[in-house]
Amino acid sequence: MRISELAERSGVPLPTVKYYLREGLLMPGVATSATSATYDDTHLRRLALVRALAAQGLPLEKIKTVVDLVDHPRDDLFTELGRAIAALPPYVGDPAGPDFPRARRLLERLGQMYDPRFAAVAQLEHALAALEAGGLRMGDRRTDTYGRHVLAIAEVDLELLPTHSREATVEAAVLGTALYEPVLTAMRRLAHQHLAARMFGNGEPAAPGGEPDRPDQQEQQ
Amino acid sequence: MRISELAERSGVPLPTVKYYLREGLLMPGVATSATSATYDDTHLRRLALVRALAAQGLPLEKIKTVVDLVDHPRDDLFTELGRAIAALPPYVGDPAGPDFPRARRLLERLGQMYDPRFAAVAQLEHALAALEAGGLRMGDRRTDTYGRHVLAIAEVDLELLPTHSREATVEAAVLGTALYEPVLTAMRRLAHQHLAARMFGNGEPAAPGGEPDRPDQQEQQ
Repeated sequence: MRISELAERSGVPLPTVKYYLREGLLMPGVATSATSATYDDTHLRRLALVRALAAQGLPLEKIKTVVDLVDHPRDDLFTELGRAIAALPPYVGDPAGPDFPRARRLLERLGQMYDPRFAAVAQLEHALAALEAGGLRMGDRRTDTYGRHVLAIAEVDLELLPTHSREATVEAAVLGTALYEPVLTAMRRLAHQHLAARMFGNGEPAAPGGEPDRPDQQEQQ
Repeated sequence: MRISELAERSGVPLPTVKYYLREGLLMPGVATSATSATYDDTHLRRLALVRALAAQGLPLEKIKTVVDLVDHPRDDLFTELGRAIAALPPYVGDPAGPDFPRARRLLERLGQMYDPRFAAVAQLEHALAALEAGGLRMGDRRTDTYGRHVLAIAEVDLELLPTHSREATVEAAVLGTALYEPVLTAMRRLAHQHLAARMFGNGEPAAPGGEPDRPDQQEQQ
């Protein structure tokens, strides 16, 4: 397809598509003349990836890191995945020295392998330090429960990862990490509401900010 | 304690403490003279709450909403909790009409009670729409697995909620919602690493961004 059709089908404005081409976020099309080129589904998929990462708040330079890793594999798949995931937010500093004592304690309790240089270790340390600053402490019972169920979630994530090509695997792993996180946190809030309605309420969902009511779709179940 | 000691013990600068007092984020102390007042542990706890919410990126007006709900209960606890949680980010618009079709489908499949006006329904809809924009689709197998395990996590959250006072319950629910979300998402990334090291690697954690190595603490397990 021509670049104008690529822009139209992807929903990305033409000047933005050209900008992504110049910045190397989108791979060049196949030249059909000195001034035009043709594009295909790989370009559409790439635009979806770039847009999804941008919508997650990734700055262009981080998107470029991810895209480079997808396009130019340099290491084994596992190392590449680690680098790509490290390009995702949150970008935390080093909150409590290089030792990550809280994250280490949690991971050792769960018996999980980890590499202390993996960005998620610093992210976990930062999150646990923020809990403490808020006067909360993550006890063993919560640690064990979270650990068990998060592992089950991660298992299905890996099981559903496409494996037909290295590029597809890295792409899906990065997107899946970034895009399922808000799904999970919204689902947890809704699970709280579901459970709280049973505990505190009369079995019906009460209405935050209004009169309690029973939505139609509940009737139909 | 005096206000200077409150500032010192809480780690919040004195001018900020005074600002929080003026804005109503911190409740007044007990006056001991025309120009001084005394503060206690409830003030320390409140400062920890305000700081923790601010660190999560909540603007002051949203923190004030939460604090007002804690201080001035107007409704049943369940409705109050809904309002307080709605003050937390992410603040999403209405991404796909008022119907939230994706979120409804998911919640109905899981058989969960929900109120469509609860902010988390819009958050879930937004997150699912972002998945689609990225070319991903949440299938039934992933929905069911996430649903089951997120519910188990939410159960321990509610079980561990303090119930000795209404104020403590609302405070802990709001803080627990906000502060455990980054813990969960970091734990998921680390669970991926743990599983991927077993799948792709040689049983040792490979090193993203460096030579594979085996950290000392792994040896000690």
